[in-house]
Amino acid sequence: MTQHADSAIPLPHLLTLEHLPRPRLVALLDRAQRFADGADDRAALAGMAVCTLFFEPSTRTRLSFQLAAQRLGADVLNFDASSSSTSKGETARDTLKTIEAMGVRGFIVRHKDDGAVAALAAAADPGTALINAGDGRSAHPTQGLLDMLTLRQAKGDDFARLKVAIVGDVKHSRVARSDLHALRTLGAGDIRVCGPASLLPDDATLDGCTVTADLDAALDGVDAVMMLRLQRERMAEGLVASLDDYHRDYGLSSARLRRAARDAVVLHPGPMNRGIEITDDVADGPQSLILKQVANGVAARMAVLEALLAR
Amino acid sequence: MTQHADSAIPLPHLLTLEHLPRPRLVALLDRAQRFADGADDRAALAGMAVCTLFFEPSTRTRLSFQLAAQRLGADVLNFDASSSSTSKGETARDTLKTIEAMGVRGFIVRHKDDGAVAALAAAADPGTALINAGDGRSAHPTQGLLDMLTLRQAKGDDFARLKVAIVGDVKHSRVARSDLHALRTLGAGDIRVCGPASLLPDDATLDGCTVTADLDAALDGVDAVMMLRLQRERMAEGLVASLDDYHRDYGLSSARLRRAARDAVVLHPGPMNRGIEITDDVADGPQSLILKQVANGVAARMAVLEALLAR
Amino acid sequence: MTQHADSAIPLPHLLTLEHLPRPRLVALLDRAQRFADGADDRAALAGMAVCTLFFEPSTRTRLSFQLAAQRLGADVLNFDASSSSTSKGETARDTLKTIEAMGVRGFIVRHKDDGAVAALAAAADPGTALINAGDGRSAHPTQGLLDMLTLRQAKGDDFARLKVAIVGDVKHSRVARSDLHALRTLGAGDIRVCGPASLLPDDATLDGCTVTADLDAALDGVDAVMMLRLQRERMAEGLVASLDDYHRDYGLSSARLRRAARDAVVLHPGPMNRGIEITDDVADGPQSLILKQVANGVAARMAVLEALLAR
Repeated sequence: MTQHADSAIPLPHLLTLEHLPRPRLVALLDRAQRFADGADDRAALAGMAVCTLFFEPSTRTRLSFQLAAQRLGADVLNFDASSSSTSKGETARDTLKTIEAMGVRGFIVRHKDDGAVAALAAAADPGTALINAGDGRSAHPTQGLLDMLTLRQAKGDDFARLKVAIVGDVKHSRVARSDLHALRTLGAGDIRVCGPASLLPDDATLDGCTVTADLDAALDGVDAVMMLRLQRERMAEGLVASLDDYHRDYGLSSARLRRAARDAVVLHPGPMNRGIEITDDVADGPQSLILKQVANGVAARMAVLEALLAR
Repeated sequence: MTQHADSAIPLPHLLTLEHLPRPRLVALLDRAQRFADGADDRAALAGMAVCTLFFEPSTRTRLSFQLAAQRLGADVLNFDASSSSTSKGETARDTLKTIEAMGVRGFIVRHKDDGAVAALAAAADPGTALINAGDGRSAHPTQGLLDMLTLRQAKGDDFARLKVAIVGDVKHSRVARSDLHALRTLGAGDIRVCGPASLLPDDATLDGCTVTADLDAALDGVDAVMMLRLQRERMAEGLVASLDDYHRDYGLSSARLRRAARDAVVLHPGPMNRGIEITDDVADGPQSLILKQVANGVAARMAVLEALLAR
Repeated sequence: MTQHADSAIPLPHLLTLEHLPRPRLVALLDRAQRFADGADDRAALAGMAVCTLFFEPSTRTRLSFQLAAQRLGADVLNFDASSSSTSKGETARDTLKTIEAMGVRGFIVRHKDDGAVAALAAAADPGTALINAGDGRSAHPTQGLLDMLTLRQAKGDDFARLKVAIVGDVKHSRVARSDLHALRTLGAGDIRVCGPASLLPDDATLDGCTVTADLDAALDGVDAVMMLRLQRERMAEGLVASLDDYHRDYGLSSARLRRAARDAVVLHPGPMNRGIEITDDVADGPQSLILKQVANGVAARMAVLEALLAR
């Protein structure tokens, strides 16, 4: 991926933030900030068709990309791959190649399998760009970007001074992985990961992080808390005893939040399970940046679409 | 709602026609008439995103709003709330706030519960406008507007001289309630409501109306007949004995329509149950304004979108 | 249909290629070629709304029409008739008339029943155009057009010299019927139809064709092989013994393709059942025009939309 180091060379795809060189990442954040400040450019992708190709449903992410693409002037097509040709036995690759043959040059792809989006990108023609909108547990790079944008707005550029806690089901979270990729690249000084042992990965994902099962310890003095969504299927899988237990041990309440720095901020990728991983008073409180994240999501996706597709 | 009396002050939302001052209502009808006459204004909402947020499915109403928004230049997003994040346990309020945070300023909302749209409007930021596209049995204000526009085109502005019959399942009908709100505001001279006792409301809904279970009496000499759709679930609920009985007693046939004034007009909000509440010869006959209503629906919705969202 | 012979008179609808006069067909192909070469005309249908009205789902055909309409500047509405008012008991005709009343002048209609699109066209107002996007087993005229465009690009205009084999489930295929209509009109010199007796029609569909159950004989020296998709329900219906048997007897492999002319081309309407009617090496090989067909589909649909709707 060394070719990405020179930010003058266009990125062909955005599959992950891992190994994305810092100047690239910062350039995307800078551009996203301009869009967050209200810049529009309906000429950037005018006359271009962009397709959301979701093999796993997600309305909120799809809408965010759709708004981003429209603000750049693109026509947006939605392909719900869970209810169409794929159900007629067509492979994901054939679906991609077919829509590509129709003249679509930008694809926003979500898939339940790790690496599925990279495999599709490898099958694409030169000049076609894929954006990973979430694959398996691997990566959700635009979420990582919007989280960094949100942190930077609140805490400034000096990530070396930043203390961050990521709390919850890190093991199954592509959001956590993309956040960790970006936080490392930006040189975050103190990254803490917290969750029950059953929900923590046992691989290189946590390299360089302080890992703890104790939420109070994780929160102590941090500048930012990044909460993760608890998928309810973790209960059926026996990884979580009960929602009550989980809430008691890993739910963020305002009482608990007092352990963090006084001006600490709270992030959550949504949709929230209110009363489980986060309480209403925190979600809707003055330290919450959750809706700011959503707003930044459109800006971050505009930056990515522009970087990959604008001629 | 007295602030609405001054029509120079923008409406924040359109939740119901009840208490909407007459000058406001007439101004909306006048503007809708211009759109019905073919006026377009693709600059009015250019670059603005409008979202249909339907917690209860309705393709025809969604399409009508979508066409109206497009003719004003807006980008339209469709959020089918029955098949998305809400099924992941997200509250309707969080769904609204999330899409609002993405930069969407106009929402067209349908919900099965009375008052649900008003509750969402109360949660919206200043500058965000909600249009009630039908909530429970309470209100469907754009249907009321389009019905008044259709009546006015056929019968002129002098509602005081108008004799109208509303026939069918008034009890469960938000269409009937919005029609009654508007007819009262416009001063309709003679409003008759007709249906079986089991399908008539027992509250203030019918204040000022002549109520009868006898369709022949209700039709006698009227200028307009507004038929309502019979939901088939009324049978399962035991409120209607059989479709045959209902058709015999409350179905509008051309024979029956002869009781009305010679130039009486027939309205129906659609979709029709042909052969139940209305016969083919009436639905497709010369007195039917049913397709005119559909055409006026786009115009009425353009007027509302413009009034709420144009800067 | 003799009025179609004068290509200066606008076509009201495109329901079938049968009886479409050759000058009309050639004019559409010529115009499609210009779009395939990259011509765009966003002014052609600017401000016009076009609706896809699919009573049978098909994402790929819908997307192709959507891209075609967008490249001509139209607003596109999608009406998924399998999940809406029709499920409330509304007739297809009422659905059409309703959307037409909203101001939509172009409809792209798919239906599972033979003749259903023609019946809807008969109910449309003058000035409204319907395009048959596939009805029952009868016709899929834009697929026929795109296949002819693809053949012409590869083999030139002189269809009299062309030897073509159509292979597979011709009996249930609207694609095969539209291809046969067009090949006859263009004067194709040698049309061979091949499939098991259970999947061949016993009517006038095959008039003028050489019919055989022997794939090797059908392929001998042909310039083009048009493979058809095997619907898996043919097994349940007892029309095909097994997928293995079908593949052995009627699957196109590269070994088998050597019986055709050295520069023979292979077409397939998609989505493919890889390993059944076609092997990977043929589908992805140098003689395959399958993705070219997809690209030509957008161009052919632009030509049709323009011919029917541009003022």
